[in-house]
Parts: sequence; structure tokens; C-alpha cells
Amino acid sequence: MAERLFATRRQTVQLSEPLTDEDMTVQASDDASPTKWHLGHTTWFFETFVLIPHLPGYEVHDPNFGYCFNSYYESVGKRQPRQRRGLMTRPTVKAVLEYRSSVDRALEMLLAGPPGKNKDILSIIELGINHEQQHQELLLTDILAVLASQPLRPAYTAAPPALAEVTGGSPDDGGRWLDFEGGIARMGHDDTSFAWDNESPSHEVLLHPFRLAERLVTNADWLQFIDDGGYRQPLLWLADGWAAVNREGWTAPEYWEHQDGAWHAMGLEGFKPVVPNRPVSHISYYEADAFARWRGHRLPTEFEWEFAARSHNVASSVAAVGLHPPACKLEKHAQLQQMFDHVWQWTSSSYSPYPRYRPPEGAIGEYNGKFMVSQQVLRGSSCFTPPGHSRVTYRNFFYPNQRWQMTGLRLADDLD
Amino acid sequence: MAERLFATRRQTVQLSEPLTDEDMTVQASDDASPTKWHLGHTTWFFETFVLIPHLPGYEVHDPNFGYCFNSYYESVGKRQPRQRRGLMTRPTVKAVLEYRSSVDRALEMLLAGPPGKNKDILSIIELGINHEQQHQELLLTDILAVLASQPLRPAYTAAPPALAEVTGGSPDDGGRWLDFEGGIARMGHDDTSFAWDNESPSHEVLLHPFRLAERLVTNADWLQFIDDGGYRQPLLWLADGWAAVNREGWTAPEYWEHQDGAWHAMGLEGFKPVVPNRPVSHISYYEADAFARWRGHRLPTEFEWEFAARSHNVASSVAAVGLHPPACKLEKHAQLQQMFDHVWQWTSSSYSPYPRYRPPEGAIGEYNGKFMVSQQVLRGSSCFTPPGHSRVTYRNFFYPNQRWQMTGLRLADDLD
Amino acid sequence: MAERLFATRRQTVQLSEPLTDEDMTVQASDDASPTKWHLGHTTWFFETFVLIPHLPGYEVHDPNFGYCFNSYYESVGKRQPRQRRGLMTRPTVKAVLEYRSSVDRALEMLLAGPPGKNKDILSIIELGINHEQQHQELLLTDILAVLASQPLRPAYTAAPPALAEVTGGSPDDGGRWLDFEGGIARMGHDDTSFAWDNESPSHEVLLHPFRLAERLVTNADWLQFIDDGGYRQPLLWLADGWAAVNREGWTAPEYWEHQDGAWHAMGLEGFKPVVPNRPVSHISYYEADAFARWRGHRLPTEFEWEFAARSHNVASSVAAVGLHPPACKLEKHAQLQQMFDHVWQWTSSSYSPYPRYRPPEGAIGEYNGKFMVSQQVLRGSSCFTPPGHSRVTYRNFFYPNQRWQMTGLRLADDLD
Amino acid sequence: MAERLFATRRQTVQLSEPLTDEDMTVQASDDASPTKWHLGHTTWFFETFVLIPHLPGYEVHDPNFGYCFNSYYESVGKRQPRQRRGLMTRPTVKAVLEYRSSVDRALEMLLAGPPGKNKDILSIIELGINHEQQHQELLLTDILAVLASQPLRPAYTAAPPALAEVTGGSPDDGGRWLDFEGGIARMGHDDTSFAWDNESPSHEVLLHPFRLAERLVTNADWLQFIDDGGYRQPLLWLADGWAAVNREGWTAPEYWEHQDGAWHAMGLEGFKPVVPNRPVSHISYYEADAFARWRGHRLPTEFEWEFAARSHNVASSVAAVGLHPPACKLEKHAQLQQMFDHVWQWTSSSYSPYPRYRPPEGAIGEYNGKFMVSQQVLRGSSCFTPPGHSRVTYRNFFYPNQRWQMTGLRLADDLD
Repeated sequence: MAERLFATRRQTVQLSEPLTDEDMTVQASDDASPTKWHLGHTTWFFETFVLIPHLPGYEVHDPNFGYCFNSYYESVGKRQPRQRRGLMTRPTVKAVLEYRSSVDRALEMLLAGPPGKNKDILSIIELGINHEQQHQELLLTDILAVLASQPLRPAYTAAPPALAEVTGGSPDDGGRWLDFEGGIARMGHDDTSFAWDNESPSHEVLLHPFRLAERLVTNADWLQFIDDGGYRQPLLWLADGWAAVNREGWTAPEYWEHQDGAWHAMGLEGFKPVVPNRPVSHISYYEADAFARWRGHRLPTEFEWEFAARSHNVASSVAAVGLHPPACKLEKHAQLQQMFDHVWQWTSSSYSPYPRYRPPEGAIGEYNGKFMVSQQVLRGSSCFTPPGHSRVTYRNFFYPNQRWQMTGLRLADDLD
Repeated sequence: MAERLFATRRQTVQLSEPLTDEDMTVQASDDASPTKWHLGHTTWFFETFVLIPHLPGYEVHDPNFGYCFNSYYESVGKRQPRQRRGLMTRPTVKAVLEYRSSVDRALEMLLAGPPGKNKDILSIIELGINHEQQHQELLLTDILAVLASQPLRPAYTAAPPALAEVTGGSPDDGGRWLDFEGGIARMGHDDTSFAWDNESPSHEVLLHPFRLAERLVTNADWLQFIDDGGYRQPLLWLADGWAAVNREGWTAPEYWEHQDGAWHAMGLEGFKPVVPNRPVSHISYYEADAFARWRGHRLPTEFEWEFAARSHNVASSVAAVGLHPPACKLEKHAQLQQMFDHVWQWTSSSYSPYPRYRPPEGAIGEYNGKFMVSQQVLRGSSCFTPPGHSRVTYRNFFYPNQRWQMTGLRLADDLD
Repeated sequence: MAERLFATRRQTVQLSEPLTDEDMTVQASDDASPTKWHLGHTTWFFETFVLIPHLPGYEVHDPNFGYCFNSYYESVGKRQPRQRRGLMTRPTVKAVLEYRSSVDRALEMLLAGPPGKNKDILSIIELGINHEQQHQELLLTDILAVLASQPLRPAYTAAPPALAEVTGGSPDDGGRWLDFEGGIARMGHDDTSFAWDNESPSHEVLLHPFRLAERLVTNADWLQFIDDGGYRQPLLWLADGWAAVNREGWTAPEYWEHQDGAWHAMGLEGFKPVVPNRPVSHISYYEADAFARWRGHRLPTEFEWEFAARSHNVASSVAAVGLHPPACKLEKHAQLQQMFDHVWQWTSSSYSPYPRYRPPEGAIGEYNGKFMVSQQVLRGSSCFTPPGHSRVTYRNFFYPNQRWQMTGLRLADDLD
Repeated sequence: MAERLFATRRQTVQLSEPLTDEDMTVQASDDASPTKWHLGHTTWFFETFVLIPHLPGYEVHDPNFGYCFNSYYESVGKRQPRQRRGLMTRPTVKAVLEYRSSVDRALEMLLAGPPGKNKDILSIIELGINHEQQHQELLLTDILAVLASQPLRPAYTAAPPALAEVTGGSPDDGGRWLDFEGGIARMGHDDTSFAWDNESPSHEVLLHPFRLAERLVTNADWLQFIDDGGYRQPLLWLADGWAAVNREGWTAPEYWEHQDGAWHAMGLEGFKPVVPNRPVSHISYYEADAFARWRGHRLPTEFEWEFAARSHNVASSVAAVGLHPPACKLEKHAQLQQMFDHVWQWTSSSYSPYPRYRPPEGAIGEYNGKFMVSQQVLRGSSCFTPPGHSRVTYRNFFYPNQRWQMTGLRLADDLD
């Protein structure tokens, strides 16, 4: 546990190393938080929920940091408004890194001593590790938002995490359907390993026969959608989606730009031509839904996705922590491809509590439950997700208009 | 059919009779349309979908009215923007009533002739009747919004549709729970009578054991919630709901106002003290959800609601069309009370398509499907709903922040 | 005095007669008030400032009307927010006309009796007459805004007030300059006749030699400006003006629309082709300023305008009250043309107090002084201005972005 | 000239030295630009208007920097939108400092060679020096905005530029009036020394007799205004000002906060108790105007201010360039105190062109003229203004709602 904890803590700092202090400070949009804030917030999380309640004699590093780095825990206290996180030039990056070191030393002390065996503490540290992994992924998506807003269009590193190219596309573009009988199936997390509260309780669900595309929808597929006027045909869109298209002026995925006769996109590798046989990414739920309707199919429910993933025994790549793979790998062990490690996949399921779900007691109870309205579930994981972080029961969630994440889609349909 | 059609058409005009031309013209909010617009739009619906395609030689009453009275049918053409409907002083009320008469005469001709037996025509007329009934209900909720925005606080009529008083309240206030075993149940519309496309296809659903409150939550219940600081405790609320409370300054349901030491509310009967033993109304989904959490319970899913309604064999009051009851009646035939005819009941189910749902071909396909995101399902009906309009499979839907409708709640919980 | 008072009061009602109750109720924009509100507000003005303080035993017609019809008098009490005036369906037009009659009867009583000779009363009645004339003009401009927002594009009457056609245009389009030596000149109102407080005190001003165009800028001039790309050249515009052009998408004056290959405009006479030899109207200060710069000239100051008007002895047409001229007449008595009765003329002078200006005591002091910032002075009068209402010292004022008034321009330049 | 140029260039960098790279990058509001942007923009100004046209063979340092650092010159090209300047993490501070060095070296070359005697070049360099001085002042006001938005409330340096304390206050608080006869006076810049285009042409103005307060309004004066309910009495305010008070929730000057029973304010020295006998600062025109009305006086016109300053022969402190005084000094040579070096003084004059004003040809012509609408003139200078930068004819200008500058007031009145 200690080893995983400190490997995770180091990894967060490593992700920030290619950046200047300035890159780490600004906020590209209300959705995207500064790198520095992620560095501070994940540290505040351990200080607030592990050290203060569990390390006798621990003295708070700086009493003002609670205001700076609390995200949304109403029960913990006031905080810097989310949309003003990018104004915090103080504490400096240097001071935040000192804060990290100081909290890490205290965590070492805690884990070295006999309380290190305390089960409650281990459980909250496990939560903290997973929380920090989520912020590693956000750190990457948020820094992409910063880099994409630069007139100079810089790259993050020479070989950043990026989407792998694939062979074969969606079912209407040479790919295959995989069929599933459905029936009553048990869904959700049901063993003693770590999972978020929103993956429980495990419960039975009735599934109707369905089919799922073997592969993700690609940029090549998406270019057809654009060329066919997909962004200009109101009947393809949900009403809210059509309003968003017109209000925001969408004509392509986020970060795409038409230049010199071809579509380019901004990624961590800089501003490059769109690669046709990569999965499409940075699309909203509205766009995913419109694309599926244009193709005459639909999006899967979150339970169809989970059922298929369980049936084919696919899993997220469990690589050694601390070394982020330079490019995501394909799963080799199943027909069902690209379930993990490429892009998060929009489902048609709204983000709702499972039957008998109750959020945990205390501030940790604010983690998931209070967001269960008006959002859609995404399943899988992306090439920005830390190795080993996701699983078949994992539920990610965003508002249907959000596009700054690594979000794509896989087609589904009814099985006659 | 002809009789029901013209009774419905007359009823819409009767609902407008207590109003001045001025009342019928303005628009109290983006959500609430003018009475005159409802009168015109329901007529345009019959003209566009019945007369033009089915009555040979029919000449459009006024070619500009399509622009004025199309609501949201992208496939039919351009239209007056929704939020500017209240600017249309022309056509006048008088001209719109002439439009109604003219279209009614053409419908009479159509139904008198041999095409009156045409099944397609009858089916679209049935749709038009139900469409007009929906607008009768909207007309009342929208005119309440107009009257509530008047400094002079006028009443609609001396004895308008209003909420009945009840004896007994929610389970924590003397009321009873009713228990249900759950299991696999068939849900949705499955016979040949009229229903909206969103109630189909009929399909099986797996229900876990649950309980449902015998009665609706009352104003007396709600006053306790207010007095206990319900609107000031962030931990009771969904994050979006808490943001709405603060942004909108909510401290009570819509139309409530504290005056001379007591809560009053604006209704069709004018500005009156809040009656404790009436169902609470004009609350958002966020408020319904927060109230349920405060009581330690939850909202039902739409399938729990439908299952209970089927089990207890409750039905919407099927009164003679054309005579709106001055006050809603209690159902007498079951323990389960107030399922219909009082207030629409928020459910925890997001508005999504049923398995294998496909919208109808053509413009009519824009009726329901394109709204299936970010909204919540409500079940039952309100005292503003035309008699006979609703049924156990009926799905109403609004955004979680909307409060101008007759919206309330019934508590549910898990059954151990 | 009594005769002028009641003639003015009747005239306001006559102006509303071509309109439906619905036309009189809605509000086309925050700037434009409903006809009904104008009818009520001018009546409230006499009730509040004449009858209540001066008619012994007078009983307020309806105590709620103060809230409905107070415009902006903070010292008198609360009021319906300006941008929500168009929601007031009650009181009805009928009730407001009864309010007018009732107040008129009380005014008759007051003027019949000995207090009719009271100088204070006469002075406030004179103010009320002039106030009502201002609202007659606003009533017309505001009803044009309502009619222009109708999809059906109705006309106000068959022969409404409208702009006269002229022969000869601006100095670069065949027109002449008139030269003025300048020097020290006395400006502002200086006799005992009625004038607004903002026209006083009379004071000396130092004028540098200047020239003024004999005539107003015409639609023909403006079409050249459009054709030359005037709306697309940032260097012609004030920075705030260029921001407005882009934010609002301006490509022509308000109410202009390009259709079937030609510019048309909405006026009280309906939707008609733009008439080249009429004065341009419905332009903002930004547009007037940009046009002048494009022509290599400038706008006059308000004192240059007044000096020229005094020198040439032009005056506003003093027609019989009660009969609005169907089309404005040209002045015949001077070289300087169209100073009055066509369009208000933007000047380069910001709206500021004259030296030693003090607003009157009491609520009437809120009439002019509190608006003296961020607005520009306009001089002259328009074809919507009641005959006899304006004069050489009259100062109208609007924000530089406002276009719903009858606003145009006359060019000026320095004299070498 | 070369000496003054490079002293000014060094001074800008020195002003940034107390700051972290992070402080220099963010943007506290749309009005306040980042320090880094000021460093880059002042350099781009010399590159664009001096080096490119005048140094043969000069190669642009980085062709992308024009987009990054152009402020508002439409004739030069596209630019980063003003409200997004705080997103530019690239170029880094380090890269901008290299840009400065590189441009400085090229300027040295230019001035060393024979073109160094070219009069056009010297004139544009003089402009560049004055332009850079303006940005030094903005840099300080803008960095105060950044520091004031920090939860940690840091100081800029231990001994930053700050307001001197004074003895004696406004005329109603123990201070004196100074009387002026007025008459015809020549105003504006009229010699060959440097001045902005907006200070010319010199011209005659007619002044009526007036009086001017010997001293500025102090914080002690302002606390009386607050205590007397100044922020709650609508009749003291211009209508736009009263709307701003309510919209923005103003209850005190910008950066003031009531804490532990006393008013504190954020300044470059950190968060400190308000010092009563310092001039009040960070007030809008609306507040200055309301205060003057509350005291029964008024603000001076810009010509009254200039006339008084000329009469008393006061001047801005002309210190050695390159050393910013740690605190501003009082003028000793006149009764008229604090005309310069304390706070900018709002005048009642709107910012308009002087008679016969024509902006210069070319891009430099965009410097002043295009802002001449809806703003008010301020006279004097503040303790943030570089020594020697201001003069009696200097015209500063801001919108009436702006408060982030060092803006205060001096009372005036009519002389009977």
C-alpha cells in the first residue's frame, strides 16, 4: 500500500514536469482546473481526510490552503470558487511542491507506525490513491485545454500519451457486430477490492438482446459524418443538442480546425493533421447520439457495455504504476476491442443511483452521489487514464455538452 | 371521434373565455406560451397534419400563420422564436378565433365525407385531440404564470380548477406506506388504444422490492421542511440543485410569498394563504429530491410508480369531455390515493427511450424523441389535466429546475 | 391652458386609436414601453404631481396604479421594473382609459375652481403637458418597435406620420455648407416660457468658426456608405462602436432589411422599399460618427447647432395641437433646412449639466439631471414630435448605441 | 534620448522583479492585463513602429508575437482577444525577457548609427517611451488587481509605491477653497515638448467663476459618506450609478473590506486598515459624483482643473527616471495641494476631441481618438504614475464604472 501510495504521488509530480510554472497556473475554462490546483488539491485531500483525523499531533501545513484547495466539499468549509482557480498565483508552484513533500513525509510517518495497520486508515488511503489517479487524468485533459488555447500551439512533450491507430472501424465501415442474448445479469461491484460508491450495490438487471460494435468509431467515420452535413441536419439531433450546435457553432469535434484544406487537431503532441484510423475523441454526448442516429443505430446502455465487457473478459491494462505508456495498447485477448485505454465511451444511460445506493457517511459522501442528475454515464477508460485505474464496473460521468475530455463512442443496436 | 374532436376544440376556447385579449397575448417566461399562441398552434397542428395532406382542395387559411404557430417542427419550416411568442400582437385574438372556426369547418367537411373513414386520418385526428388536450393543460399553467406576474394579482375565475384538500399526509406525518414485492413486470403501453410513442414499446422490467407512500406530500409537510432550514442545508441537495437555490434565491415553492407573517401563494383563484392539507405544488425536481433526502427516503422510479398504479388498479378520472371539474376528486377505489388529478409526481427516472423505441416517421416523429436527455419523468396527472387524458403508462417530462407546472411528489423507499 | 391641457390629453388617446388592445400591451424591447403604459403613466403623472397635492379631498383612483405606472421616481415609491412593463395585462386598456377619464374630470374640477389661478399649479400643469407630449412621441417610436417585431409586418395606419422627401442631400452629394463665424454666444433658455430644467441656465459659450450642412444626410448618402463597406472598416469607427457593430451584427440602420435585391425598411406605414431622398433615420451615434468620418467631416456640437438655428431664425412648426400632420413639412423661411420635424440630429456633445445647473427640488428634480452621463445630446425634433413641442434650446439625449428613435444626422466641419 | 529610452526600458523590468512568473501571467479582470503582457506589448510597440519601418535588415524576433502582443491596433492585424490575455502561458516570462533584450539591442544599433539623428525616428521613440510609462502605471494597477484576488493576500514588496498621508481634508472637513475668476483661457498643449495627440490643439475656452478645493477628498471624508448611508440613498446618484451600486453590490471603494469591526483595504503593501488621512482611491465616477452631491458641491470640469493648475504653477514631480519614489511627495510650492502624484481626479468632463482635433495618420492614430465616447476625463497623476510622465494638459480617461485604477476626487463649486 505504502509503495503504491508514494508511486502514485510521484507520478502526479512527474506529469507536471514538462510544464512551466505559468502553464500550471492558468485555467482554460470553468471545467478545466490548473495543474497547480490538482497538485495542491490531491495533497489537501490526504491532509484533510488522513492526517488531520488520524496522525496524532499533526499540524496543518498552512491553514489558508483549505480555502485554496477544497474542491466542493460543503461539509469541510468555504473554498475558492471553481471558475476562479486560475487566478491563484499564490501559493506558488514551488510552495505547492513543498506542501506535497511535507504531507508525504507525514504520510510516511503515519504508515511507518502501528496505525499503519489500522484498517480505516488503509481504506481512506486507498480512496486517496484512486482520487489522485482521477486527478492525474484530469491534469492531462486540463493541460491539453491550456495548450490548445495558446496562440503558439505548443506540445506537452515529444512523446505524450496519445491514441493508438487501429485497423478496422465501425460496423458500417468494415467492422463487425458482436451479438449478446441478454437476460438477467448481475451488475456493479461485488467483491472486496476498491471501487467507488457509485458502482454499488451489486444488483440484477434485465437486458434485452443487443449487439455491440467490436471497435470504436474512428476519425474516418467522423469525417464522413461531417461531409454528409451531419452538423447541419436538425433531424439528426436531440433538441438540446441542436441548440448547442447553433449556440456554440460546432462543425467538428473540440480542438479540430480546418486549415490548408484539411482537418487538423490540437493534442498533447501539438497541432497535427487528423489521423483517420484513430478513435474519434473530444465529442459531446449530443454529437455521439447524432452520429449513431445518422448511422441508423444507437448508443449502448451502461449495462449493455458492462455485460459485454464481462462476457468477453476484457480488462483495463494493468501496467506498472509510475510509468505511463507512451501510447495505448490494444487488448489482444478478445474480439471486443478498445474497451479500455483509448477513449471513454458515451452510453445512453443517465447517471443515476443504483438500487439501494446510499452515499457514505461524512464528507466522503459528497464524492459521487450529489452529481446524480442531468449527466450521462461513460464507460471504459482513455489513454490518459492511469494504468489499472478503471474496471468493468467503473462509471465515469459528464454533462451532455462537455467535450474537453477524451470522449468517444461505440455503436450498439437491438438484436432481432 | 368527430364528437370528441369538436368537444375538445370547444373546450380550448372555453378555457380562454375568462381572459382579456391582453392576458392572452403576453408571455410570462420563456417556458410559458401565450394563450393566443396555444389557440393558434393547436389549430395549425390540425391544418398542417390533417387538412393539407388529407382534404383535397384545401386552401391554407393564411400562409404566414405557419411561421407564427409552428412550435418546434424543424421538418415543417421556420418559426417565431419561442422566447418571442409574447410579442405577437398580430394576428389578433379575434383573427385567431376566426382561424379556429375556419379550420373546424374544414375538419367537419373532412369527417363528413367518405375520407372520414380513412384509418390514417382518424389516427392523426386522435393524435391532434390528445395534442390539444396537452395544450389545454399548458394554457392553464401558462396563464397562471401571467396572472402571477401581475402587480394586481387577479384571479382567473371565481371557481377555477384547484387542488383538493386531503386528510392524512406523508408517511412521516401520519400517512401509510404500501409495500410491493417487485419482480419482473411488463411496463408501457400494450393495447390498441391511443398512447404517445414514448410509452412504447411495452417491455419487461426488473423491479426490486419497494414501498410507496399512500398519499402525496402536502404543504404542511413542506412548511416543516422550510422551518427546518431545508433551503439552507447544502448536504440535502444535488450539486446542481444547490447551485439553483443560490442562483435563483429559492426559499419556497414557485409563487409562494411570505406576507404579514404567513406564507401565501398565487393560484388561479388569486393570491391566498397556503392551505396546509393540499398537496405541495410548483416545486422543481431538485426540491423534490432534497425533501425526500431530508425525510430519509427517496423518490420512486417511474416503473415503481407504474407498477403500483397497475397493482391497485387506479385510473385517471374519466369525466365527460367539455366540462372541467371545478375541483379535483379523490379516487375512492383503492388504498393508493391521489395518483391522478392532483399534481404531477416527479420520479427519479431520467426521460429515456424504452428498449427498441423508434420515433414515428415524418414530422410527428419530432414529438417526443428529441427531448430524451437531461429531463426527468413525471407520472400521474394534475388538476389542470383534461379528464381522461392521462393513464398509468403516461410519461410527462420536465427539466429538473422547472417549477411553473403543477409538480409535486410522492415518497418511496426500499423494502427490506 | 385648460384648452391646451385637454387637447393634449385627447391627442394621446387618438394616437392609440388605430391599435388593438394587444398592440398596446406588449413591449418590444427594454427601451420601448407599451402604449398602455404610456397612457397610464402620463395620467399617473397628473394624479401624483397635480391632483394629490393640489385638489383638496381628491381620492386616489387606484392605490395600486402607482406601482404600475411610476417610471423612475425613486422619491415617489417602488415600481414595476422597466423591462417587465410588457407583462402587465392588468389593468386592461379599458381600465386605463377609465383612469384617464377620471383624472381628466378631476383636472377639470381643479382648473374650474379658484385654485385654477394658482401659479404653482399652472406651472406643474405646463410641465405635465410637455411631459405628455414627450410620451406621445415615445408612444409612436415604441409602437413602431412593436409593429416591426411582428412576423405579419402590419402598418399603423394608412397615412401615418412619416418622413418627407427632400431635394438635395449632404454637402458631398450636391448640398451646400453654411458658414458661421462663431465667437462668444449666449446659449440656453432665457425667457419665461416653458422649457426643461436641462436647457438652463442661459450662459455664454465660446464658439470657434464652423460650417454646417444645409440639409440632413439622406438614405441615398447612407446607401453609398453601405456600398463602400462602411460597416466593415474598423478604422472608421469609435472602438465602442466597432464592438457594437460586431456584437449586434449591424449592416444597416435599425429596421432595414435586404430583400429581393433591395433595401426595405419597416416604418409606421409598413414594410416598404427605402426611399433614397428621405433623411436617414434609426441610426446610433456610433453610426452617425462613423459616417461623418467616412465623409471626412464631423458632427456638430450642440452649441454649433443651436447657434446656427438662432442665426437663421428657424423654428419648430407650431401647428394646431390635436391634429398631427400626416407628413412633416419643410421650413420655408431659411437656407438652413430640416432643423426640425424630420429626424433628431446626433451632436458630438455629451449630455452634461450647464454651468450652475441645479435640478429642481422634489421628485421633479429626477426628471433630467440624473441621466447626465454616458449619453449624447440630440437637437431638433422628428416627424413624430408633437407640433410646437421642440425649440432651439431643446436637448434630447440617448445612449450612443440606441437606434429605436427617429435619429439621424447633419454634417459639420471646421471653418478655416 | 537613448539614455531616457533605456532607463525607461529597465524600469519596466525592475517593476516586475518582485513578482513570480505566475503573478505575471494571470489576468484578474477584463480591464487588467498580465504583467507579462505589458512586458511584451511595450516591446512589440518598439519593434512594430520603430524597428520594422526604420532599421534596415531588421528581422522580426518571432512572427507569432504580433498576434500575442498587439493591443487594439486594427490596422496592424489580428490579436489575442483582450479578455483572454491571461491564458497565454507561452511565450514564457523568460522568452518575453529575451524578446525585450533582443529588441533593446536592435534599438541600440539603430540609435548608434546615423539614422539615430532622424527626426521621425526620435519622435516615434519619444512616443514609445511615453507609451511604456503608461504601461508601467498599468502594470502596477493591474498587479494590485491580481494580488487583491489572492486568497493569501500577498504584498507586492515591503515598501511599494503608496499614498502619502496628508494634513487637512476637504472643504467641509477643515480644508480650504481656492477661488478663480475664470474668463477666456487658452487650454491644451502648445509647445514643442512631447504630449499626446488628445491634448491638442491648444484652444481658447470660456470659464465661469469657480472654486476648487485645496486638497483631495480623504478616506476620513469617505467614511462619513458611508456612515451617512451614502451608498443607500438613490437621490444622491446618477441613474446609471444607482444601477451599478445595486448590480455590483457596492458599499465602499474597490478593495475595501469590513473585517473585525473596521474597514481594511488591499493595496500593494498588502491587506491593511484604511488610513483616514490618505486620499480616497479606487472609486468610480459614479461614486465621486454622488459624494460631491452629498456634500452639496460638484466635480470640476477638466478646464477648471487645468486653469487652476496653470494659475498656481503646480507641476508633476520630475524625478530621475529609473527610480520610483517609495512614497509620493507633497508639492511644496503652492497652496493648491496634491494636484499630481496622489490619485487621478475625476472631472465632470466627458472625454471628447478638442476643436479641430485630428488623429495622426497611420496606426498611431488609433492611440486616443477612437476612445472618445462614454468616458470621463481624469486629471493629475497618481503615486503609480512614473515621475515626469504627467503634466497640466494631460488627459487620462476611464469609463464611469471603472474602479481598478488609482482614482479619487477633488471638490469644486460655483463662485457667486
